[in-house]
Amino acid sequence: MKCEIISVGTELLLGETVNTDAPMIAQGLAELGINVYFQTVCGDNPQRLQAVLDIAKARAEIIITTGGLGPTADDLTKETIAAAFGKKLALHEPSLERIKAHFKDRPMTKNNEKQAWLPEGCTVLDNDWGTAPGCAFEAEGHTVVMLPGPPSECSNMFRYRAMPYLSRLSGGAICSRYIRVFGMGESAMEDKLSHQMNTWTNPTAAPYAKDGECLVRVTAMAPTAQQARQMTEPAVEELRGILGDVVYGVDVDSLEQVVVEELKQRDLTLATAESCTGGLIGKRITDIPGSSACYVGGVISYSNDVKMQLLGVKQQTLSQYGAVSEQTACEMAEGVRRCTGADIGLSTTGVAGPDGGTEEKPVGLVYIGLSTAQGTRAIRFLRTGAKRDRVRRMASSTALDLVRRQIQGVE
Amino acid sequence: MKCEIISVGTELLLGETVNTDAPMIAQGLAELGINVYFQTVCGDNPQRLQAVLDIAKARAEIIITTGGLGPTADDLTKETIAAAFGKKLALHEPSLERIKAHFKDRPMTKNNEKQAWLPEGCTVLDNDWGTAPGCAFEAEGHTVVMLPGPPSECSNMFRYRAMPYLSRLSGGAICSRYIRVFGMGESAMEDKLSHQMNTWTNPTAAPYAKDGECLVRVTAMAPTAQQARQMTEPAVEELRGILGDVVYGVDVDSLEQVVVEELKQRDLTLATAESCTGGLIGKRITDIPGSSACYVGGVISYSNDVKMQLLGVKQQTLSQYGAVSEQTACEMAEGVRRCTGADIGLSTTGVAGPDGGTEEKPVGLVYIGLSTAQGTRAIRFLRTGAKRDRVRRMASSTALDLVRRQIQGVE
Repeated sequence: MKCEIISVGTELLLGETVNTDAPMIAQGLAELGINVYFQTVCGDNPQRLQAVLDIAKARAEIIITTGGLGPTADDLTKETIAAAFGKKLALHEPSLERIKAHFKDRPMTKNNEKQAWLPEGCTVLDNDWGTAPGCAFEAEGHTVVMLPGPPSECSNMFRYRAMPYLSRLSGGAICSRYIRVFGMGESAMEDKLSHQMNTWTNPTAAPYAKDGECLVRVTAMAPTAQQARQMTEPAVEELRGILGDVVYGVDVDSLEQVVVEELKQRDLTLATAESCTGGLIGKRITDIPGSSACYVGGVISYSNDVKMQLLGVKQQTLSQYGAVSEQTACEMAEGVRRCTGADIGLSTTGVAGPDGGTEEKPVGLVYIGLSTAQGTRAIRFLRTGAKRDRVRRMASSTALDLVRRQIQGVE
Repeated sequence: MKCEIISVGTELLLGETVNTDAPMIAQGLAELGINVYFQTVCGDNPQRLQAVLDIAKARAEIIITTGGLGPTADDLTKETIAAAFGKKLALHEPSLERIKAHFKDRPMTKNNEKQAWLPEGCTVLDNDWGTAPGCAFEAEGHTVVMLPGPPSECSNMFRYRAMPYLSRLSGGAICSRYIRVFGMGESAMEDKLSHQMNTWTNPTAAPYAKDGECLVRVTAMAPTAQQARQMTEPAVEELRGILGDVVYGVDVDSLEQVVVEELKQRDLTLATAESCTGGLIGKRITDIPGSSACYVGGVISYSNDVKMQLLGVKQQTLSQYGAVSEQTACEMAEGVRRCTGADIGLSTTGVAGPDGGTEEKPVGLVYIGLSTAQGTRAIRFLRTGAKRDRVRRMASSTALDLVRRQIQGVE
């Protein structure tokens, strides 16, 4: 079964937007055992999209498009594809109601109705993440799926709408498991697991790196989903055993999710005192629904005054050791634990860059403090040469992992 | 002059790597006034690359490829393209010397020599950023440029090697300007600007929506970059005039960048007291380098205890009106201004969901407080039906925009 992904959008063609939908879809199709041989990008132009469709029809059985389903005049994907397969558009009342509900607190302009016109006889893919519904149909020996372009909508629509629709086309069932790793590089991980990666055929083990983290994807194919799942179990255990405590979870979404769950399980509370990360740790923790059960909040002590006034960091400490120091990190972590009454205090203070670095304290240097009733300590984190975003992201992950290790009792 | 970008690489096709080369090249081509109508991704497979080339030859005068120039057996782009244009590969001695020099401290495996075999008669594009040289030639009425795939090599090779080669082919220059809008939906914006969008031909005006914001792109073509820029000026002014104060900037990166710049210009300081956004506003402000000049930090008051202990929100206020209320938002904003000494206090308190909503206070309801020496007020923000991420993102943007409006004196 061959699939072509067609990404429609002038912003992609002009290079203003990086196409993240196509790789996301390609990865999901790989899980379903559906091959992608070509991906095409074209603009919001009916003639050129028509030409692209003609080519795709000749070389793929499944055609998945992203983009061009919105309310504006240049959104023409549905119209063009319906015409290419000899279909008319029809008003889909339930979709119109959903769109109206979306606007119940705001005025809805007339052009939004356009989104509810869909190819006659199609399967409507409800969009719970935006206004434009997707759709799917089969015609002329082809399966066509249309998804909205904005990545947050497209990824959910693909995962929860298109994949179930497509899964019945693939030959069997696939189960993928994700072993999440923090604190080990991709090449080191590959080195440790080279035997399994090179010799396993079903299940397979493949390494990925993203946002300073790694993961191993274990994928099994079997006649049923349950059998596929069973085949992954011993494989996941074997790899976990080899990797050790750098594994922070299996089939979990993120480090912050694991931290929140572990805190809740143990009835512990956490408070944060952030300098260089400026709220990023708090943001990541509160991304998790229900985090209010274990996260009380804390202080963003970006200035030295706030470090002293709200956290009680000593003037003497700041002048003797500087704001970016082990001592200040410890006083921040202790301070936030004291002033909020939380069980665990977590702090960051560092040089995120691009300016502010010195020879002694370069851009990329961050101290991370951890305070509990048992005591307070700080670790030194250094990522020289990294950009501001990367330093902040990696420091926040290292801080979250420090909490995870503290709770789980691993060093 | 039309160009097609062909990205060669199985890792792109499988979605393991996001294709950042194609948008980078597309942006550069726009600067040269070269149109891109299609981008294609195909794997390291000679037959399929051959088929893609045949299609590209029929619809573009310029063909730019990325990837497949390396030393390994699956790198076949040069071989395939040379064959498609009836050319042989020949050993290019200077390139071989360069590759050998690259390996002067390490053993060089034999397969690296493959990179010095280039289409006969081509213009060699020296690679100062890696081992594989690029090349360009003209044949059968087409201009062909081949660049290496790794983004750090590709971007430099394109900028410093391919662009000078291509610049003589282009008819003129393009200038694009970006009018950034917050607080008006894409469809409402299109409604207001429909005349300009539909009738303007040079410059053109096109709408985009992203992350709950909108922008209008104004693009002009002219013989020189300076002339193109001049043509955009009255167009940008006209659209700005129509849109009014929902425009937060032109050619700026983000709302937070504008807020930081405006604060710095006026020598004002800001502090935040975040409940439902949990640090997201602080994170966004401190994403901006140099934000320490105007942002002192603040409090993440996720629990009621922290609201009372650190911000001085009254127990009475919480029990009478609730944590999610205009009154609490005001006391939070006042409290953070008082305890940090900042000029402006900004607060958020709301129901981000998915749980915790009631009929009176549904998921998506957020109060945003603003306190200055002149007084304190709060606005009510409601986005029912939106997911947690979206509520938090939109509430943080609304809060930043409130600060922008306060500083700029627009309501």
